[in-house]
Amino acid sequence: MNLDSLYSELTLKTNAKLALVVLDGVGDIATKERGYVTPLEAAVTPNLDALTQDAAQGRMLPVAPGITPGSGPGHLALFGYDPIEYQVGRGVIEALGLGLELKAGDVAARANFCTLDAKGIVTDRRAGRIETAVCEELCALLKSKVRRIGDTEVIIRAGKGHRFVVVFRGKGLEGPLSDADPHREGLPIPTVQAIDSRSVKARKAAKLVGDFYAAALPLIARKRPANGFLMRGIAHQPAIPLFQDRYQLRPACLAVYPMYKGLAQLVGMTRLEGAQTIAEQFERYLAEHSNYDFFFIHYKYTDLHGEDGNFEAKKKAIEEFDAALPILLRKRPEVLVITGDHSTPCAVKGHSWHPQPVLLTSAYSGSDKLDRFTETGANLGSLGLFEAKYLMRLMQANARMLDKFGA
Amino acid sequence: MNLDSLYSELTLKTNAKLALVVLDGVGDIATKERGYVTPLEAAVTPNLDALTQDAAQGRMLPVAPGITPGSGPGHLALFGYDPIEYQVGRGVIEALGLGLELKAGDVAARANFCTLDAKGIVTDRRAGRIETAVCEELCALLKSKVRRIGDTEVIIRAGKGHRFVVVFRGKGLEGPLSDADPHREGLPIPTVQAIDSRSVKARKAAKLVGDFYAAALPLIARKRPANGFLMRGIAHQPAIPLFQDRYQLRPACLAVYPMYKGLAQLVGMTRLEGAQTIAEQFERYLAEHSNYDFFFIHYKYTDLHGEDGNFEAKKKAIEEFDAALPILLRKRPEVLVITGDHSTPCAVKGHSWHPQPVLLTSAYSGSDKLDRFTETGANLGSLGLFEAKYLMRLMQANARMLDKFGA
Repeated sequence: MNLDSLYSELTLKTNAKLALVVLDGVGDIATKERGYVTPLEAAVTPNLDALTQDAAQGRMLPVAPGITPGSGPGHLALFGYDPIEYQVGRGVIEALGLGLELKAGDVAARANFCTLDAKGIVTDRRAGRIETAVCEELCALLKSKVRRIGDTEVIIRAGKGHRFVVVFRGKGLEGPLSDADPHREGLPIPTVQAIDSRSVKARKAAKLVGDFYAAALPLIARKRPANGFLMRGIAHQPAIPLFQDRYQLRPACLAVYPMYKGLAQLVGMTRLEGAQTIAEQFERYLAEHSNYDFFFIHYKYTDLHGEDGNFEAKKKAIEEFDAALPILLRKRPEVLVITGDHSTPCAVKGHSWHPQPVLLTSAYSGSDKLDRFTETGANLGSLGLFEAKYLMRLMQANARMLDKFGA
Repeated sequence: MNLDSLYSELTLKTNAKLALVVLDGVGDIATKERGYVTPLEAAVTPNLDALTQDAAQGRMLPVAPGITPGSGPGHLALFGYDPIEYQVGRGVIEALGLGLELKAGDVAARANFCTLDAKGIVTDRRAGRIETAVCEELCALLKSKVRRIGDTEVIIRAGKGHRFVVVFRGKGLEGPLSDADPHREGLPIPTVQAIDSRSVKARKAAKLVGDFYAAALPLIARKRPANGFLMRGIAHQPAIPLFQDRYQLRPACLAVYPMYKGLAQLVGMTRLEGAQTIAEQFERYLAEHSNYDFFFIHYKYTDLHGEDGNFEAKKKAIEEFDAALPILLRKRPEVLVITGDHSTPCAVKGHSWHPQPVLLTSAYSGSDKLDRFTETGANLGSLGLFEAKYLMRLMQANARMLDKFGA
């Protein structure tokens, strides 16, 4: 018997409120350069500290030992989906990141302008890194001229610099496709093909991309330096079981950055828009408390400063979060989790594979008798080291939403 | 390669004695109401404490994260069987709980008397919660009149209040079947059907249950208030690989409560009857030391008081266990494990999903240098957090019963 089916069978409806607060990339590592202290350890966090007395702690593997996840797999795991089973193509992630609302079956591609010579050979894969304004202008031109191909709608959105996104919305389409990108200069743009050549839908999508090239390339052929474009990570939005069906919880997303809103939307969460700061997000949680059962609250700045290797700024971001925390606690959810989607150590200046610390507090979490929420403290916690995809099941258990298994 | 096959290939015979002592539901959680102390922490346990110096500790997931097991899955996991692969139906567990000795292929059902109106509609699913004596009288009547149906033996045993158990012992039978229970008043008793309609054996069992109703209902039709009965959890005893074949160990069970004897018998352990207290169970262990290689010793009272939320009584049960422990140690087994089948926290008043603490001592266990056996101590142990189904393999390894894998 499949474990997910067992969990589904055991799932009960209750009136509990659950909150998953994600400090993106909060986990870090202690290194000599920083006096063997992490940002979580260095930060002054009286409100987090107060939670730990009645909390269980542990560490989570975002995907599997040694694997550094992108934001997609990191969040899918937090939402309780196996990030290896449910893979979301880069085109889809990029589209979500630009705030596009995708539908199941949409095929999305990361694209960027490039320079071609007279023979169609790629001479600069980034078209001299054109300005965003130029990119927007070119995208506007393509959008105005190529709205549909056959029965398929074409959606184009400019990104930063030379980057943009193309979404194909039609019937019977599927990815993944091979890249329309030679991956180095001196070669022509390859024709895309279905990765699985037996898939009729993928072959249709591949033909569509070819038709798109045929329609779009002539429109910019005389532009300089961006007279061509490349497409990569072409994939469809996978059919993911809805969060609400899976857990019997009405879910809401309180995120500021588009990608996290998009990832929440992938699993069917309602996006609550407007809040710009963590304090405003918590205020909105209070206002919406009775309308939803599950709240995903995303805080970006821990990751952002970790990516820059800026220890002080990451520490300060944690302190700002801590200062806002009492707002959330005015209506304390029955189950509250504070964690990251992965670690972003300052010494790495990027996402990493180090298991992120997790804190869970409920009437049934028990106490691990730890004074603070830190990486080394979490190593001692009762939750141990576990795969992030099980976090939702622990939250359900703490909400008394999982019936007993067997007599 | 299947992991179980690998373990089997590596298994050697030795002269070691192994003892698995189960303090049912011993695990607990530290909560504010109890001053953040668990019964294990509060109890005075000099003999357990003395063991810890030469022991490894850890925590075990009974089934999977967040899943609260019944006694069946909890014990099957301790015996080294995947509790999801080997599921034992509620009818079977109930029959074992009433002390019935089941054979592989027996189909067992939980049953209870109910009240029917003139049209056969269920008006009270519990027949006004009749007294046990009335239930015994009705069961005696059914037993005397319905001994066989065709080539199948019918075994009926009264339980508490309105509850009883029916076992069908014949050839070519199989569960699971749908319930003969509308699960609410105002509806007739539904006809049972095979869950898997392709199973000839299950269809035969379903017909048999129908025939049993046809024979039994008229016998009590004029009784009041119990003039009908419902049947649920109808399943056959699954074929489980024998413990002795799996581990090359002659196993014995020293349990006081019928259900645990029954679960041990499911995997082919010999039931050693007679001992009523933990001291008597340990004395019996000494007497039988040379006759068996593996001893499953079950202590119920930690769970019993946990279910009542009675912290003091649970603590006292641990102290009584501790006082008897020196008897066992007179012939110290080469491998001794003390653990629970799950946690039964006083704050939950029932089984829970919290990983139970485990202590393992042998000449090769090493020392985790912990002073006591407690939940928070076990968090720090060298065994870490692992699935309970692997405990038997750790015991085998400590008994030097597992050969090296590969060169």
